Amino acid sequence: MSDNKRGIIPRKIKGFRDIYPELNQLRWKIITKAGEVYKKYGYEHWDTPIIEYADCLGKYMPDRDTIEEGVYSFRNPEKEPVYKKNGEELRDKWNKVIMDNHHLSLRYDLTAPLARLYSENLWSQFLKNNINEKKIPLFRRYQFGQVFRYETKLDPGRFREFWQLDFDTVGTNNITADAEVCMILSDAMEAIGLKRETYIVNVNNRKILKGFLREIGIFEIKIIDDKNISQNGEEIEQDILRIIDKVDKIGIKEVVKELGKGRKDSSGAKIIGLKLTENIIEKIEKYLTTFNGISTRTEIINNLNKLSIKDKIFNEGLDELIIIDKLLNDIGYKDDRIAFLPTMVRGMAYYTGPVFEVNSMQKYKDEKGRERKVGAICGGGRYDGLVEKLIGIKAPATGASIGVDRLAELLYLTKQKDKLENGPVFIVVFDDNLMSEYQKIAAEIRNAGIKTEIYYGTQKGLRKQLTYADKKNCPLAILIGEDEIKQGIVTVKNLKLGKDKKMQDIKDRKIWRAKVQKQVKRENLISYIIETIEK
Amino acid sequence: MSDNKRGIIPRKIKGFRDIYPELNQLRWKIITKAGEVYKKYGYEHWDTPIIEYADCLGKYMPDRDTIEEGVYSFRNPEKEPVYKKNGEELRDKWNKVIMDNHHLSLRYDLTAPLARLYSENLWSQFLKNNINEKKIPLFRRYQFGQVFRYETKLDPGRFREFWQLDFDTVGTNNITADAEVCMILSDAMEAIGLKRETYIVNVNNRKILKGFLREIGIFEIKIIDDKNISQNGEEIEQDILRIIDKVDKIGIKEVVKELGKGRKDSSGAKIIGLKLTENIIEKIEKYLTTFNGISTRTEIINNLNKLSIKDKIFNEGLDELIIIDKLLNDIGYKDDRIAFLPTMVRGMAYYTGPVFEVNSMQKYKDEKGRERKVGAICGGGRYDGLVEKLIGIKAPATGASIGVDRLAELLYLTKQKDKLENGPVFIVVFDDNLMSEYQKIAAEIRNAGIKTEIYYGTQKGLRKQLTYADKKNCPLAILIGEDEIKQGIVTVKNLKLGKDKKMQDIKDRKIWRAKVQKQVKRENLISYIIETIEK
Repeated sequence: MSDNKRGIIPRKIKGFRDIYPELNQLRWKIITKAGEVYKKYGYEHWDTPIIEYADCLGKYMPDRDTIEEGVYSFRNPEKEPVYKKNGEELRDKWNKVIMDNHHLSLRYDLTAPLARLYSENLWSQFLKNNINEKKIPLFRRYQFGQVFRYETKLDPGRFREFWQLDFDTVGTNNITADAEVCMILSDAMEAIGLKRETYIVNVNNRKILKGFLREIGIFEIKIIDDKNISQNGEEIEQDILRIIDKVDKIGIKEVVKELGKGRKDSSGAKIIGLKLTENIIEKIEKYLTTFNGISTRTEIINNLNKLSIKDKIFNEGLDELIIIDKLLNDIGYKDDRIAFLPTMVRGMAYYTGPVFEVNSMQKYKDEKGRERKVGAICGGGRYDGLVEKLIGIKAPATGASIGVDRLAELLYLTKQKDKLENGPVFIVVFDDNLMSEYQKIAAEIRNAGIKTEIYYGTQKGLRKQLTYADKKNCPLAILIGEDEIKQGIVTVKNLKLGKDKKMQDIKDRKIWRAKVQKQVKRENLISYIIETIEK
Repeated sequence: MSDNKRGIIPRKIKGFRDIYPELNQLRWKIITKAGEVYKKYGYEHWDTPIIEYADCLGKYMPDRDTIEEGVYSFRNPEKEPVYKKNGEELRDKWNKVIMDNHHLSLRYDLTAPLARLYSENLWSQFLKNNINEKKIPLFRRYQFGQVFRYETKLDPGRFREFWQLDFDTVGTNNITADAEVCMILSDAMEAIGLKRETYIVNVNNRKILKGFLREIGIFEIKIIDDKNISQNGEEIEQDILRIIDKVDKIGIKEVVKELGKGRKDSSGAKIIGLKLTENIIEKIEKYLTTFNGISTRTEIINNLNKLSIKDKIFNEGLDELIIIDKLLNDIGYKDDRIAFLPTMVRGMAYYTGPVFEVNSMQKYKDEKGRERKVGAICGGGRYDGLVEKLIGIKAPATGASIGVDRLAELLYLTKQKDKLENGPVFIVVFDDNLMSEYQKIAAEIRNAGIKTEIYYGTQKGLRKQLTYADKKNCPLAILIGEDEIKQGIVTVKNLKLGKDKKMQDIKDRKIWRAKVQKQVKRENLISYIIETIEK
């Protein structure tokens, strides 16, 4: 099949989309407002490239040109040296540097590039052996931009390119920094315009879940999976966490089934169970039941204490929650803004301590009229091992990410978006010979600080021009022909008033026109426009 | 070689870079200020994906996985139908839809995605045969973001990922729209902070150059190139334009040589000449000499008229320049802002009429102390054929693009950047037990609208903390220990004053400290901070 038989159909890649002005207005409101909050806490604005060496992003180490694990990757067209772990170039037996087209990836989040950035800045120190865990620098940055995921199944409303807005502190083991992340998330939500009690920042600690599971003995049991492979404690832990993570969606009863003999999903398909012992399942069920439903941070701490768990990691996690709670109380972030949720897992495997999410409690009606919840709009946590993967030195870190597009969708669906920005004052073009007059008027209006557009389209009819202006949400249209110029007047049509519902009740066209369309003296035009728009 | 022998060296891809806060401040100043100007003229903010189907971007139609023509491309991991020109799926002889992993590209500019966006919106109309040149809609948008070029040779200061800021009008053949583009470019430069007479918007018209070359007979001559292939008129025209484009860099004399027998470049390498006839070369030389050096738009129009060229295209181009000049005069954009430059070519082959560029006349010293010019920081023009390639219908268009990174570099190199933004007020952490006091103070300062950071680093020494604060351009440091709390006071160190040159002359440490470090009553802290920062 020759290429010239193919059609060049103008289209976007599946899972990608164009952002129209109204959506952009929402997106940039979120970025600007939350960015201001981040800055207020001392975060600086950094940016990193869209593409990175695949190995630096860490998650994905490909040996093929196509990818299957959710990341868009390809080979660098440029051949470059292959390096050894110590930073030296790898050479062949003739001492020639081995060259390769390295794998490149579109970034899948903003945290992996942060780890690369932080590590790269330490690299020369690292090679000199001049860096250790006690000497790691503190680094706080915020960043926003596109990230890319190659999701093979694409749910409606999900995209393969979406925007994130992250803030992170690298080089701190201070648990106060984690408490601050919760405060920032809450501040950011309210700066964006979410009302209190329509959202909640949920906090848990991975150590609590891990310690609890250790205490009840999951690291001592043996499980043979369905492929007849025996699993170690870590793998069992990950499986249990993965199932507990579903409790919000499927409820405790179904979680219990999946931990045991298995269950059927909503479509009737069979989901194989983890086949844990009755004893362990019972303990997990009790834990989930205890922390099901809303209670205050104080109650939750009391209940966690009452479990009388001896495990060291559990108690580390509990102590950290207590520190966070105390600080939040001191500064006045109450239970209506930040809550503890000991059943919360959060997906990312790299979290090592406190984890956070922001949940919207708001509901909306989908296209079929069903009531739906928006769910999580931000996520984050402490990740003490991410930099270690690159330079072998622990640089404990904590931070969170706002899902900009999810949040924009929330504001849109729950009708919390701002009023659509006014379009430009619109100058109708009747006669190209008058262009210089149109331009002079436009320049005057712009000089008064007001957006103004002259119509340059090929379809010249008045109706066509006004339809175009209406689509752009133009507030006023300026109409000038030869006659108006002779008389020194300008006709100004109030497009917004014309669309007003009250106006549509006026049946008499004369009265309607008298209200919507005014003749203004040329010398009064600018002040009339300013006055009308400000109303 | 197994992958685990490879080192994961934290590094960026060659030609890519991280953007630190100071550079980000410049970048976003440019985007915000110029964006406001675009909006003022009626452009709306749209966004398109970073990656597109390679065939939709038009320039590059690959049949391999690697690319050589300056575009980063790769295969879509997802198989999708292959389409015929009419939009139907292509089927094999068993009537099965042919599937393929289509080629995807990182966008190399923002104009090709605009053509895709505009065409895609017209596609359903197009399939219904419901669209023609007279019915094409008017569309005006601005957009900013990263674009990617795989340049095999990478000059210093050049990058493979850089930001552009475009505004375009599609669906207009009105030459006034082109005049407006010049006005917008000039307004945008001044909004960003460039002073008048440090930059110039240059305007030419491709039709003038094309018409002139037709008039002197280049479409009638025969040239056999060095590979013994005879070239047609279009090819000769492109070659001549390519050489004329160099006049700024190499001068008329060298251009004349390259049009004839050839020349040697600065390194002594031989550049093969175009071997045009003496007669033609003489005419081109005369043209270049006539329009060499600065003259007013009026003079240039007079000189173009004096050439007495009969060619239709030349005169179309000249008439368009005259329209542009008249409008600019009417609105008051004089020769010090917008100039005509009849020798200007502008690289992109798709320009069909007026072309624009913004040149900075400012000079800077490079790292070797040599004086250098910045050159072109914006480019644009009329492109009437770009949408036609996708839907076969002419949608005449005009617009321009600001090279955001080039412009940021200009502001940086010529020291026109704004003062570095103040960092946060910095709270030194002496004692973790006092954290709740530090937090309360921080919250108070933030509530007064001032950025505040509490130190969470692992290196606790005072000097380390203050070095960190200095790096972040923090104006003040707050020092509180047990003693201060007992006495109800706070020590405030003025970090900016401490760095002041005048202060360094003070030899007496006591006097110095008394000036730089103040003890403030706790209840007066916030007002003291506000007062000091506002100074």
